[in-house]
Amino acid sequence: MPLPLAFRFAGYYAGLKSDPSQLDMAMIVSDTPATAAGVFTQNVVCGAPVTVARARIPSDDLRLVVVNTRVANTCTGEQGITDAKTMASVAASKFGLAEEQAIAMSTGVIGRMLPMEKILTGIDGLSKTLAANDESFQAAARGIMTTDLQPKFTTRELQTSSGKTIRIAGLCKGSGMIAPNMATMLAVITTDAALKVNDAQAMLKRVADVSFNCVTVDGDTSTSDMLVMLANGAADATPLTGNDITNFEKTLTGLCEELAKKIAADGEGASHLLTVEVNGCASESDAKQIARSIAESPLVKTAIAGGDPNWGRIMCAAGYAGINFKPEKSLLLLNETELFRNGQPVTFEASKVSKSIRENFETSVKLTLGEGNANAKLWTCDFTRQYIAINADYTS
Amino acid sequence: MPLPLAFRFAGYYAGLKSDPSQLDMAMIVSDTPATAAGVFTQNVVCGAPVTVARARIPSDDLRLVVVNTRVANTCTGEQGITDAKTMASVAASKFGLAEEQAIAMSTGVIGRMLPMEKILTGIDGLSKTLAANDESFQAAARGIMTTDLQPKFTTRELQTSSGKTIRIAGLCKGSGMIAPNMATMLAVITTDAALKVNDAQAMLKRVADVSFNCVTVDGDTSTSDMLVMLANGAADATPLTGNDITNFEKTLTGLCEELAKKIAADGEGASHLLTVEVNGCASESDAKQIARSIAESPLVKTAIAGGDPNWGRIMCAAGYAGINFKPEKSLLLLNETELFRNGQPVTFEASKVSKSIRENFETSVKLTLGEGNANAKLWTCDFTRQYIAINADYTS
Repeated sequence: MPLPLAFRFAGYYAGLKSDPSQLDMAMIVSDTPATAAGVFTQNVVCGAPVTVARARIPSDDLRLVVVNTRVANTCTGEQGITDAKTMASVAASKFGLAEEQAIAMSTGVIGRMLPMEKILTGIDGLSKTLAANDESFQAAARGIMTTDLQPKFTTRELQTSSGKTIRIAGLCKGSGMIAPNMATMLAVITTDAALKVNDAQAMLKRVADVSFNCVTVDGDTSTSDMLVMLANGAADATPLTGNDITNFEKTLTGLCEELAKKIAADGEGASHLLTVEVNGCASESDAKQIARSIAESPLVKTAIAGGDPNWGRIMCAAGYAGINFKPEKSLLLLNETELFRNGQPVTFEASKVSKSIRENFETSVKLTLGEGNANAKLWTCDFTRQYIAINADYTS
Repeated sequence: MPLPLAFRFAGYYAGLKSDPSQLDMAMIVSDTPATAAGVFTQNVVCGAPVTVARARIPSDDLRLVVVNTRVANTCTGEQGITDAKTMASVAASKFGLAEEQAIAMSTGVIGRMLPMEKILTGIDGLSKTLAANDESFQAAARGIMTTDLQPKFTTRELQTSSGKTIRIAGLCKGSGMIAPNMATMLAVITTDAALKVNDAQAMLKRVADVSFNCVTVDGDTSTSDMLVMLANGAADATPLTGNDITNFEKTLTGLCEELAKKIAADGEGASHLLTVEVNGCASESDAKQIARSIAESPLVKTAIAGGDPNWGRIMCAAGYAGINFKPEKSLLLLNETELFRNGQPVTFEASKVSKSIRENFETSVKLTLGEGNANAKLWTCDFTRQYIAINADYTS
């Protein structure tokens, strides 16, 4: 994979999870000064690592991210803040960095204190195993997983107008409690392009809005989520401008969309990745609200799990989104088959549409209204028996 | 049961459901002119019977309600409107009433035309079996059920200041897709008190807001819901005023609360009735929004199903409700045990709280914030494997 230059990665087993064949910590280090941008959870109840990182990002030189799973360090009071700072400062000290050049991320159960002894042992292990290769990059992706079934990572490469090659690598975790506004999602993007701090921050916010914030698994928005991007300029020290920055943003958007879809597809118990598109609204926020209402409807999500082309539940969910529209001017497609038009169902072969749901992992719902030209898109997963099993039995 | 005077009830099997041991139609008739008030679904996509009834209620003389299950007559265009009017007019004609003195209610699958032949046979059967006794009243309650496991009805009796006895009887159906703003809920209240039209309408709206609109099962708000009250004055022809009307409203509120809780308790697959109270907010709408966020969180609902006193999921759901509050000034009780106070979890015996969840059908979540004096309450049920089974396998 085309990993960005001058970044090293590690994943480590620090004894936080009970199964030693898994990894439960990760570290990402830039060997040279890096611009940092961040997007954080909007939950009123937020984790100590979020509070600490928010004060350090944006930054013109952030070099290190250290992550632990299993314990989220949320609702842990003053001691939690101290622990989050300690994680960052101990990790920073391994590389002679100031503590403000490092941040910690934590995900897992909330309300428990971090097991600092294990964490510090883990930081030591991570700092000794850091490497700039695919194996380490993927180990870092594994080291941030909670109930994810798959590690999630991807890379991109592009050329600047001056012919230089720049690389972007992203890794993330999701699963459960995923919703817009940064649910239990941790993501770290690294790039060897150079970016001005303000450019990086504004861009990351825009990109998050059309990628990670378009994912909803169960509507729950978690307390611990962070998306952080580090840009170290190791491939080209001149900050991107003009067409180069435009191309970079486009590439970054594609990378983040890919990661976001991986999160939706790996939602707890998911048997389908569902894309909900709502078009023809008076405003983008109207379109988003209707899309969210459909994507979060348990009745829609269970219908998809059951292979049921239930246009009634979809139209019903659109109808209670709180946005006024005329059903008589609406068109609904499921997997490109027309189910509903102008206020009434269309005759369609239910068994054929049902088959198309059952036989494909991806399902598409496309609702077009006659209220305007604004559109929105959300990714989600279906609601299966496994979802309930995972969440009724998860230890508090 | 103290049934109101001069009302007759019937339930009937018209062949709409496949199981002839069930009932699938109901009729309620007032033998004397009745004031009618109504509260209707706020879904943009609404059923034909809702459209027709909205035009006839409030009314100073509505006499008949006829109900069918199995087919909701929603998204059925002009023909649907015609069918809803036909149901009402054919029923009205059996008693020499004008068609505007009758309304139809329908619940069930949407997008299908009513099987009018069966419906008309059913109306004939209903009109011939109407009676003013407990058995008929309960048959009417059974005749409006869809996936409800239990018929839902109750009665009240009170005295006016002039010593007259007045009675209120209510029947309803719920189950699945129940949420504030009148989900797939049908309810008919009958009383032999007399009420002025404006009084009845304003009162019913207020009562619905603190009873039926406090129920949420899965957040989905249906297309077909109606709450209708008929007051025929058969016990006392003088419209209630002063203390009498206050007492009546109080009694009606209790009756509607009882019915609303029955709906929440009978949510699809429910193993717990969950009451969510949020106190200490800056406004009632803030309190409602936070309560709704908790009550509709799939993670909270699966935790309750699993007997897990997971304060983290509850605080997290409160935190993403979109209302600002200080976690440092909050107190959370589950079944009266303190779980969380001032931003941090309290030490509690998890096994004891878990036992109290497992061993009781009712679970109480009480969150007190330090933002003001406004309160709100919602009833919901937990999320079980059965919920998914029912909704993934329900015929579209």
